[in-house]
Amino acid sequence: MEKYVIGVDYGTLSGRAVLAEVGTGKEICSSVFEYPHAVMDRTLPTGEALGHDWALQHPRDYLDVLANTIPAVLRKSGVDAGDVIGIGTDFTACTILPVKTDGTPLCFLPEYEHEPHAWVKLWKHHAAQDKANKLNEIAEKRSEKWLRNYGGKISSEWAIPKIWQVLDEAPEIYAAADRFIEAADWIIWQLCGKETRNSCTAGYKEIWNKGTGYPSNEFFKALDPRLEHVVEEKLGTVISPLGDRAGVITAAAARLTGLREGTAVAIGNVDAHVSVPAVGIDGPGKMLAIMGTSTCHIMMGTEEKQVPGMCGVVADGVMPGYFGYEAGQSCVGDHFSWFVENCLPADYREEASRQKKNVHELLSEKAAKLSPGESGLLALDWWNGNRSVLVDVDLTGLMLGMTLHTKPEEMYRALIEATAFGTREIIENYRKNGVPVEEFYAAGGISQKNPLIMQIYADVLNMPVKIAGSDQCPALGSAIFAAVAAGKDAGGYSDVFEAARIMGKIKDKVYTPIPENAAVYDKLFQEYVTLHDYFGRGANDVMKRVKAIKIERSRG
Amino acid sequence: MEKYVIGVDYGTLSGRAVLAEVGTGKEICSSVFEYPHAVMDRTLPTGEALGHDWALQHPRDYLDVLANTIPAVLRKSGVDAGDVIGIGTDFTACTILPVKTDGTPLCFLPEYEHEPHAWVKLWKHHAAQDKANKLNEIAEKRSEKWLRNYGGKISSEWAIPKIWQVLDEAPEIYAAADRFIEAADWIIWQLCGKETRNSCTAGYKEIWNKGTGYPSNEFFKALDPRLEHVVEEKLGTVISPLGDRAGVITAAAARLTGLREGTAVAIGNVDAHVSVPAVGIDGPGKMLAIMGTSTCHIMMGTEEKQVPGMCGVVADGVMPGYFGYEAGQSCVGDHFSWFVENCLPADYREEASRQKKNVHELLSEKAAKLSPGESGLLALDWWNGNRSVLVDVDLTGLMLGMTLHTKPEEMYRALIEATAFGTREIIENYRKNGVPVEEFYAAGGISQKNPLIMQIYADVLNMPVKIAGSDQCPALGSAIFAAVAAGKDAGGYSDVFEAARIMGKIKDKVYTPIPENAAVYDKLFQEYVTLHDYFGRGANDVMKRVKAIKIERSRG
Repeated sequence: MEKYVIGVDYGTLSGRAVLAEVGTGKEICSSVFEYPHAVMDRTLPTGEALGHDWALQHPRDYLDVLANTIPAVLRKSGVDAGDVIGIGTDFTACTILPVKTDGTPLCFLPEYEHEPHAWVKLWKHHAAQDKANKLNEIAEKRSEKWLRNYGGKISSEWAIPKIWQVLDEAPEIYAAADRFIEAADWIIWQLCGKETRNSCTAGYKEIWNKGTGYPSNEFFKALDPRLEHVVEEKLGTVISPLGDRAGVITAAAARLTGLREGTAVAIGNVDAHVSVPAVGIDGPGKMLAIMGTSTCHIMMGTEEKQVPGMCGVVADGVMPGYFGYEAGQSCVGDHFSWFVENCLPADYREEASRQKKNVHELLSEKAAKLSPGESGLLALDWWNGNRSVLVDVDLTGLMLGMTLHTKPEEMYRALIEATAFGTREIIENYRKNGVPVEEFYAAGGISQKNPLIMQIYADVLNMPVKIAGSDQCPALGSAIFAAVAAGKDAGGYSDVFEAARIMGKIKDKVYTPIPENAAVYDKLFQEYVTLHDYFGRGANDVMKRVKAIKIERSRG
Repeated sequence: MEKYVIGVDYGTLSGRAVLAEVGTGKEICSSVFEYPHAVMDRTLPTGEALGHDWALQHPRDYLDVLANTIPAVLRKSGVDAGDVIGIGTDFTACTILPVKTDGTPLCFLPEYEHEPHAWVKLWKHHAAQDKANKLNEIAEKRSEKWLRNYGGKISSEWAIPKIWQVLDEAPEIYAAADRFIEAADWIIWQLCGKETRNSCTAGYKEIWNKGTGYPSNEFFKALDPRLEHVVEEKLGTVISPLGDRAGVITAAAARLTGLREGTAVAIGNVDAHVSVPAVGIDGPGKMLAIMGTSTCHIMMGTEEKQVPGMCGVVADGVMPGYFGYEAGQSCVGDHFSWFVENCLPADYREEASRQKKNVHELLSEKAAKLSPGESGLLALDWWNGNRSVLVDVDLTGLMLGMTLHTKPEEMYRALIEATAFGTREIIENYRKNGVPVEEFYAAGGISQKNPLIMQIYADVLNMPVKIAGSDQCPALGSAIFAAVAAGKDAGGYSDVFEAARIMGKIKDKVYTPIPENAAVYDKLFQEYVTLHDYFGRGANDVMKRVKAIKIERSRG
């Protein structure tokens, strides 16, 4: 009797469930639910205005994903809930919320719903930058050893700066919060009725270390005396490794989802990290880039190396027995979306509509006719700051080389190339610091839809680019972890390596570098690096000064 | 009995005649004729393809301007040709063509019409850059004194590099050319039947000096032995000062234009320089910026100072008795046109069309709502290279500060601000080198149409901006010189100072700096200067290297 698993992937704008066959990894069907509240970056649902760089979400949307997509995949597939042996989930991170001891989000309570800090802070909430700066300064001054495990910088996107911002700007919310919890773990709480915390978000986003735990109370006290006991008071100290079973579906969750009570629930996971087994990766040196609005680069290594500017190295952070490395680019697909929304002339839009193409297809076709270097353009891919290797959200975009002959498809291609150069910078930075990168895999929407971008990446990286065999990799990865949570006896797998080899997959088409293109991109990459270092490493902090003027003037 | 004069202004895309009252400067009427062949930058009329950076024109278009516009203004005004006491003209420069001894352009002859070098090279023909580079190198090595009168660099837009390109690439055309002549002087030849050469183009564009003449034959020989006698063989050595009478309308010209045979014809002039009396300027320290697709900055000084990066200092180059200073920005309105053609989203275009506005009006309205610094953007205005103060056509555009929130009107405003910073750089460069700039006047289309741009200039320069009273300044300036060519006895004026005071004019509305804005722009200008020097003065020649790759790849 064939067994099935369900993986649920929580993205930035929607959640997606996939129902897959345990024995093959074959995806039987899927269902998507778009968050009704999407990203709240201007106002709360109750109308209160949000500040600059804020990005919130509504936890009700996460529950609605479960209530809509799981019944949908069961119905579409005709699979009996009794044959579903496990469910796994993955989330954006660090996406974090304050809750009461029973897991109720503060924003669900009428007394807090008007308070922005009571809501979910989405990964791309950037308003805690001053906290991150101060945290890094203090950590450096105190020579905190863990700092070097995060490339020397804690990002404003991560948990401690975000929690500190709550304390500082809304101490009553901080006081009212019994816990701060990753959405990745909160959703597990909703499924199996108990609080768990996974090693991936704890390690990458909350500064937890398998060997040494969280930073010391003294460190937190140095940030702010009121934070001294934040770990015991607001976070959990029991951390579960990836691949564990969190628990089983409760009666309430069974009513919400249509799954059977008692179905295995995998420990929480992160959308990028969970994708690694979905492309069949089962060992070190193989980088997976999950390319969507932003890109995460996940890889395993055999040694714990401290690499400047990466997002983190976490023991067992991806699969047990290896050190998981994470790096990231905070703006990839978002560059292209920004471009078509703000820079695409009417005649291009009309041409696309006449040819019944979407505008990205049209631009890609036109850009594909250009050879590398032919546009004369060079860009820095910093429209949303730089995550790796500079870890600096205050950096901004740059393009140079424009002339009166410059066409839209040339700028579009320059933006693509800039993101590829950014990826190469990350890879070279690993190599320089003793972490080998031998293979490159791409997953995510862009990898599935845009051959031009994949070829440019192959040429810029001068490495073959292997493409995920699934267009819903995180959900498939979550399904793989669900099969591991269910365990061998229930018809699943005993470990994730076995599960990855059987259920993971790549496409037959591999993009191989074209030597002539790679040679031109080698030259342009050197130029990229010079600009990257000039604007990003302090020689000319014009971007920060101009941004400071902007913020001052926007307030005035 | 009221007397009249006609001024004809030859621009980049059209020619315009104005008929004005001598006694008041009042413009009675005008007529425009668009060049049927416009700018030829891809093919000849006979179909031959043109190279990268070429820009040619058709001399027939210039004659058609005379044949169409002069009869039109006579007809529209009802003025009798007998009451028109003079005609003056002005032209883009250096716009130059090879001709036979009788003035016939080589491109009019069937044996040469297929040869690109037989045609008029427009001011913005940039394909002689390698010649300009070599010329500058040789001049520097030989310590040629005249070089410092041109800011230390001869532009590829000027006569000698263009003539040298003809010699090098089409020696048979060079041999067949009896003369190379500025279009400014060629049109006078058509009107009064004899070759003259004016001190303005000779001084600014052909390296002629009132005191010392042209560079030595030895210098030309050092460029190329075949150029040794270029001055005697191909140029003229009799140079007429501005304000002189070139001659009178011939019978043929009378048939072409409808003017009376014997009507006074002013010596040739240049569109920018001729505009100075049209705003009433009659002395030193008052900069006139003629703002259109590009901007020319013309000013007079009492001393001959050698200012790095200006286009030239020429005795009597604007008005007799003063040193004329010229500087320039090769891309101003062209930036904004490029932007609306290549970067303006469909919804903006639709909004403009719904509101029955042109897109520049719409963008300016939206940009006017922003305060200085609020966009967080900073640009270098180099989409068409940099004329002053870097004199480098190989520089290209740059914009930084973009985020995912950046809107089109912010980029549009950043381009405006960049051109204003470019103007300020020119002014500060003059001041640093001992040439006072005390007042600022703006003429040209932009000055008449766009209050936002004028206010930004006032704020960036921190100087009041006075606006030309005529929207056809060069034509009015030409008319003023026509009145001087006619002379007092014929009802005109005895000198251009008197004529300027009576016939020149500015608007009542003066744009005054807003101190708060000026303070923000002071900060941003410092950032502009840092980037200007970093990319423009050799610290990082990335623009040139990327452009070299572009040219190589476009050929491949």
